[in-house]
Amino acid sequence: MQEVRIYDTTLRDGTQAEDFSLSLEDKIRIALKLDDLGIHYVEGGWPGSNPKDVGFFEEIRKYELKQTQIAAFGATHHPKKTAEADENLRALLAAKTPVVTLFGKSWTIHVREALHTTLNHNLQLIHDSLAYLRPHVKTLFYDAEHFFDGFKEEPEYALSTLAKALEAGAECLILCDTNGGNLPTTIREIMQSVRERFPSAPLGIHVHNDGDLAVANSITAVEMGAVQVQGTINGVGERCGNANLCSIIPNLCLKMNIPCLSSENLKKLRSISRFVLELANIPPSRYQPYVGRSAFAHKGGVHISAVEKNPLTYEHISPELVGNRRRILVSDLSGRATIKRKAEDYGLHLDKSDPVAMQVLEELKDLENQGFQFEAAEASFELLVNRAMGKSKRYFELVGFRVIDQKMDEHNEPVAEATILVKVGGHMEHTAALGLGPVNALDNALRKALEKFYPELKDMELSDYKVRVLPGKEGTAARVRVLIESHDTSDHWGTVGVSHDIIEASWQALVDSINYKMYKSEKHHRKS
Amino acid sequence: MQEVRIYDTTLRDGTQAEDFSLSLEDKIRIALKLDDLGIHYVEGGWPGSNPKDVGFFEEIRKYELKQTQIAAFGATHHPKKTAEADENLRALLAAKTPVVTLFGKSWTIHVREALHTTLNHNLQLIHDSLAYLRPHVKTLFYDAEHFFDGFKEEPEYALSTLAKALEAGAECLILCDTNGGNLPTTIREIMQSVRERFPSAPLGIHVHNDGDLAVANSITAVEMGAVQVQGTINGVGERCGNANLCSIIPNLCLKMNIPCLSSENLKKLRSISRFVLELANIPPSRYQPYVGRSAFAHKGGVHISAVEKNPLTYEHISPELVGNRRRILVSDLSGRATIKRKAEDYGLHLDKSDPVAMQVLEELKDLENQGFQFEAAEASFELLVNRAMGKSKRYFELVGFRVIDQKMDEHNEPVAEATILVKVGGHMEHTAALGLGPVNALDNALRKALEKFYPELKDMELSDYKVRVLPGKEGTAARVRVLIESHDTSDHWGTVGVSHDIIEASWQALVDSINYKMYKSEKHHRKS
Repeated sequence: MQEVRIYDTTLRDGTQAEDFSLSLEDKIRIALKLDDLGIHYVEGGWPGSNPKDVGFFEEIRKYELKQTQIAAFGATHHPKKTAEADENLRALLAAKTPVVTLFGKSWTIHVREALHTTLNHNLQLIHDSLAYLRPHVKTLFYDAEHFFDGFKEEPEYALSTLAKALEAGAECLILCDTNGGNLPTTIREIMQSVRERFPSAPLGIHVHNDGDLAVANSITAVEMGAVQVQGTINGVGERCGNANLCSIIPNLCLKMNIPCLSSENLKKLRSISRFVLELANIPPSRYQPYVGRSAFAHKGGVHISAVEKNPLTYEHISPELVGNRRRILVSDLSGRATIKRKAEDYGLHLDKSDPVAMQVLEELKDLENQGFQFEAAEASFELLVNRAMGKSKRYFELVGFRVIDQKMDEHNEPVAEATILVKVGGHMEHTAALGLGPVNALDNALRKALEKFYPELKDMELSDYKVRVLPGKEGTAARVRVLIESHDTSDHWGTVGVSHDIIEASWQALVDSINYKMYKSEKHHRKS
Repeated sequence: MQEVRIYDTTLRDGTQAEDFSLSLEDKIRIALKLDDLGIHYVEGGWPGSNPKDVGFFEEIRKYELKQTQIAAFGATHHPKKTAEADENLRALLAAKTPVVTLFGKSWTIHVREALHTTLNHNLQLIHDSLAYLRPHVKTLFYDAEHFFDGFKEEPEYALSTLAKALEAGAECLILCDTNGGNLPTTIREIMQSVRERFPSAPLGIHVHNDGDLAVANSITAVEMGAVQVQGTINGVGERCGNANLCSIIPNLCLKMNIPCLSSENLKKLRSISRFVLELANIPPSRYQPYVGRSAFAHKGGVHISAVEKNPLTYEHISPELVGNRRRILVSDLSGRATIKRKAEDYGLHLDKSDPVAMQVLEELKDLENQGFQFEAAEASFELLVNRAMGKSKRYFELVGFRVIDQKMDEHNEPVAEATILVKVGGHMEHTAALGLGPVNALDNALRKALEKFYPELKDMELSDYKVRVLPGKEGTAARVRVLIESHDTSDHWGTVGVSHDIIEASWQALVDSINYKMYKSEKHHRKS
């Protein structure tokens, strides 16, 4: 069986994406996750071009990685210098990584117009740079930048760059579609020519997604014998992104019988996909293959009944294999059977004839029609169920709140103040607080009012706050959905609110969050 | 040259996507845009399964389409009925479309477990349904559902369903990868077998994207001779979506020398991609190939200087061909040359040495760092430039505002009231208004205060209001960006505001919107 090794460049090429940036700490955390996932190589950065990357290599050395080898990335030496005198190459060695990946030019246009040198001199640069590195590095890879475009322009020249790299000791020749515009057929034909010229050289593939073909181009290269696949988590990367490892890995493992990750590790795929997006604060695409929230969601009535009978009928793989799950969508459908399934979606096992449970579910449907969405707000959902079942406890009662946002002249930010009156047990508490904006003021006032009764609220914090204006063309009168994510020392939970009034929507989500915290700590006390 | 016709199913299969729904009016508007784009077939719905779809067919008949033929979609007749007695088939004819597309089962599992009938009877269903429709329809297509999975299970049976469809008069056999999990190699091999069996039958392709390979699978089918490609705008569709026509069309036209659209129409691709997302209120993916905002965005310093010298070096196609454009990103870069390019990005041609223009651009960079984003807020940008150039006029001055949001008990919505004091010319105007939420109240109060001075504000309306919580983990104290879209009888314009305080951010965007309206009508008066 062909062995394929995965080379992740999320931390280097991935960070070329617009609106995607990672702190040093983020990069370390991602590298550790990739190690845990069983990725063979993790490219940490380009030490010659970016000082933040130097810090990464220093820091990551402190960790003992189980499965991953860290790679540093850099260019052939400057045309006006020697290899020995090139800071870029020295920085690569200073990174002290087990793997170094050097890229060079394959395309005559780039040699002449970007590098400003001759074709022959470029061959020399490739050779000398690799030969200089060779004695000092355990594993040395060569990225042939723009290889496919270069080959289309001048095949012999492109091949001669590879020959130089092999001669100087590169262990794998990674063929790059840097501009991302080639078709699978082109990849196939050109790899065939490379294979004929270098029958035993290990080949790799690195492609971009400008033609929406990066996954296909990568697996085509594997079919043509590539033993290394470079890509990024979720396909982040410059322009339209790099090849998406979250799609390539399951295609290799589950469709092509090439188990590049263990099946145990493959189950972590969805969670690492989310982890990277969370750190970069990018909303996930629900439609993402394999790992997206909708990837195994069934909406059409025909599909649902068929998939219930035999999942194979409408699912290309079992969602659990990649850590995902099947979801049944209620919209436009109804009937008790669908509602029962929806309940199971939320982990609620109910008898179809239980009237209380049916009432919960009717309420749920009604709320969803109003724009509530409980998938990311499990805490609000749990409270809703408790309430309908008569099991909920009231920790406090709102008598009223008033939020004032006042701007005194054009050039200053407004001042936001909230006053709140709540009843806790028999006691009335009236407090006020300022805040950065009206919602923050309300949040501050509510906590101030409650913390003296419930000191455990002090270890609870809001970690995220999201606002979505709901469909409809009503300008500033549109309804909004607020999602709040909270955490304490042991848990994370999400709550939701919907209203025309953003303060009211935020209030609903805040109240749920606090109630959930109280309910959770009470459950905990009862247990212990 | 091979002729390929494009069959769009955004309005039918596309609406199976989670969180994607279209009103009847939306569907009509999209159909007209697709006609304008030159799409050959537009599938409008499944009249037998959805009453909304019946309305679509009635309505679209009133329009004279230039380039598109409308198709109605339906299933083979019910196994317990005859074709003549099947409401589904009757509904198809009642739709009175020039094209009918009928789908049938190719996969034995589906015949037995979903249709609950015998393999032979299914062949009969396919034949009888098509034969019943044939005399009444101008163009009749057959969608072989699950064809590739069916072929893998029982090749002879799958082929025999196609034979029945041909025999009954289907003009094109569309092979479907309904579960979306097949690899290009599989598509290629199976199409080869189909071609051998039916050397002259016109074939089509309809695939889903569960393996992240839908675009590749579609163009592979074209390489194997398919003359019809089915897909959706932006690849919307059930689970991970259908094949994305916004990628397939340019791949065919620009890479495979198959001009399925004219080059004039191809330039509309980006705008139709946005149009569909706007109607469905789905945020566009900036990384989308060809049409995404980042698809031709250059961030790395090396890339920027190279792409300036010769666009070919880092762009697989010229962005204008699909109605997109190159963008140079400022982040992490600086220097006057980059800033000059950024200015050109906003259509501002400036001399590098002009101090005023340089000041505008410094301010712009500063605002972008704060989270402002002017791409969708050209009006705010234009005002910013005018201001810095000393050309702006003040239509009113804010003395102060106060917004009060008051909730009197737990069970009622709060009441939102805004008071505002503005100075217009020498006159002070003090007004108050209620609203659906604090932002709406402020909006109402501001208009009330200004309309008596500027009656032209009456024909201006807010058409959209968006809130985005900006990166950072500060809970309810996070900064928000508000985008407001306004229109009057002749124009649309966008404005932006950023603050920790959502009311302040909304205020900024509201004020810009009103100022822009005044500025615009003054310019107009001067001209006329």
